[in-house]
Amino acid sequence: MVAVKLQKEENRKAFLDLYPGLADEILAELRKYNMPEDAYEWTKENLFWNVPGGKLNRGLSVVDTIRILKGDAVTEDDIFKASVLGWLVEFLQAFFLVSDDIMDASITRRGQPCWYKKDGVGMVAINDAFILESCIYIFLKKYFKSTDYYVELIELFHEVTFQTELGQLCDLITAPEDSVDLSKFSVEKHKFIVIYKTAFYSFYLPVALGMLMVGVKNEAAYTEARNILIPLGEYFQIQDDYLDCYGDPAFIGKIGTDIQDNKCSWLVNQALAKANPEQRKVLDENYGKKDAEAEAKIKALYIELNIEDIYKAYEEKSFQELTTLINNLDESIGVKKAVFTEFMDKIYKRTK
Amino acid sequence: MVAVKLQKEENRKAFLDLYPGLADEILAELRKYNMPEDAYEWTKENLFWNVPGGKLNRGLSVVDTIRILKGDAVTEDDIFKASVLGWLVEFLQAFFLVSDDIMDASITRRGQPCWYKKDGVGMVAINDAFILESCIYIFLKKYFKSTDYYVELIELFHEVTFQTELGQLCDLITAPEDSVDLSKFSVEKHKFIVIYKTAFYSFYLPVALGMLMVGVKNEAAYTEARNILIPLGEYFQIQDDYLDCYGDPAFIGKIGTDIQDNKCSWLVNQALAKANPEQRKVLDENYGKKDAEAEAKIKALYIELNIEDIYKAYEEKSFQELTTLINNLDESIGVKKAVFTEFMDKIYKRTK
Repeated sequence: MVAVKLQKEENRKAFLDLYPGLADEILAELRKYNMPEDAYEWTKENLFWNVPGGKLNRGLSVVDTIRILKGDAVTEDDIFKASVLGWLVEFLQAFFLVSDDIMDASITRRGQPCWYKKDGVGMVAINDAFILESCIYIFLKKYFKSTDYYVELIELFHEVTFQTELGQLCDLITAPEDSVDLSKFSVEKHKFIVIYKTAFYSFYLPVALGMLMVGVKNEAAYTEARNILIPLGEYFQIQDDYLDCYGDPAFIGKIGTDIQDNKCSWLVNQALAKANPEQRKVLDENYGKKDAEAEAKIKALYIELNIEDIYKAYEEKSFQELTTLINNLDESIGVKKAVFTEFMDKIYKRTK
Repeated sequence: MVAVKLQKEENRKAFLDLYPGLADEILAELRKYNMPEDAYEWTKENLFWNVPGGKLNRGLSVVDTIRILKGDAVTEDDIFKASVLGWLVEFLQAFFLVSDDIMDASITRRGQPCWYKKDGVGMVAINDAFILESCIYIFLKKYFKSTDYYVELIELFHEVTFQTELGQLCDLITAPEDSVDLSKFSVEKHKFIVIYKTAFYSFYLPVALGMLMVGVKNEAAYTEARNILIPLGEYFQIQDDYLDCYGDPAFIGKIGTDIQDNKCSWLVNQALAKANPEQRKVLDENYGKKDAEAEAKIKALYIELNIEDIYKAYEEKSFQELTTLINNLDESIGVKKAVFTEFMDKIYKRTK
């Protein structure tokens, strides 16, 4: 167990060590374009402020997928290419986070000020986010143009980008922080938001990239992967919603604010689905208020409605269903069960 | 001449008539994703508010290019495909304009409120701009995946998008509206900004798309096209800067505000290059001030420095140089002189 953890740390470090070189390649592009010095320096800071510094789970998942799919046959070049693709998932995430922070009026991200909140940045951050997105395709062209899956890589990034944008739109117009209207919420909408805004890019994308890299052509393999990874990503986000309210702040590293922030959380949607007219009134009057007393009323109502039990039952059911799906997977289509059990272990042990 | 103008009007109408069908194809995608109704309606409005409604010059240029390159052999399918590509240039422009308007804190666009200024839109507009960009690749996949120039189309859009973003970054940090610092301005920076922010996507992109469509493979042909179209685009923007100060408001449809808005205009860069220390002081003290008196001082200084004459000389020189470049063009590489003279005629007659 300790050896596995050490190996993980080493893999993480190797992945992280690649980044400065990748950033330099983008900066070399700017030199090629004769970009004025101040804009060059600006972009350098954009690249180093916004792309590394996260947990890197998504990026590392591409490398993990390759290690599992290739097994002992994995080469240094495989690891390098998978790492590049992993970093592109991180670029994609950086593109989303820089812009989401503006749209959500956030203040900090990863323990430092949001990029747009930095002195002198402001709305220029929007264009900086675009530049981060553009980097994805510069790298794909540089490292994958000669492969027979180049077009598939591009199309996958485009598709997942679009899906994430649709999820983000739905999230933004369902739960604007400044105007509470719970009639916009629903269990179905919550499902759409978490699947589109999070699951596709965080769960399906890294694995599908790995599959493309090892040459999986069978469309059925991608469908199977999606059938497992999307519900897994959905569970992950629901767990996140749960932990925001019921997790130990010391463990999750933050104090939950979903209730006060009018978030379209799984919990409030379950409460809305179960509430009688009186309880609904409590929800309408107290959800999304920047006020600890109102928040306490919502939490009390969650207890009254046994929301925690509903969560526990959902967790158990989703764990069983995913385990069955993985057990029944036909590995001959080109994927391995271990790719998915790796994810399962990482995620279900968050609370267990 | 009247016949030509009528034909132009007809072409424009045919092009415009295609749009609702294209928008419907995107909306059909959203249905496929089971997007919640309010987000569907929101995106519908995004598509109709932001994409059509401009002059459509860029989009129509793709169709013009195809008509010229194919001549009498042009088919209905050619026109349709070129029109789709033309609309994708308009989608790209919409992506830029929606976000530029936020970054520039603009109020109106094309005679109506900027999208982000509409009630209830606000910063969601950032994500809406992303969605407009994503549409480009949905259409490319739908209509061009089976062609042998599909990858080139995608790479061209990516490259030009990146170039435009670099130009926009440089523009934003060189001339922020709220902090005047003329030491950041220079003739070279102005050149970088106009070429990257405008010329690539407005001039090179439409022609290169047409060339890809008719099967031009010769890299030299694209280089030649760029060698003509980039200086032409540069001239176009410089002319725009000139007209902002010296054009007849009745003719250009607006009252110029570049001086008061601290724009990194060609004119001020020429003035900066020629100014003695005293004149420089006048520039520093009066440029970018929201004040008619300060603006008048700048205009008086322009007269003192003969900026208008410098412009006239530049215009003449650039016209001559471009005419020579076009005359010397070797059509056997796969392009036709008429593609470029068409542009020349459109642009140089704006003031002549």
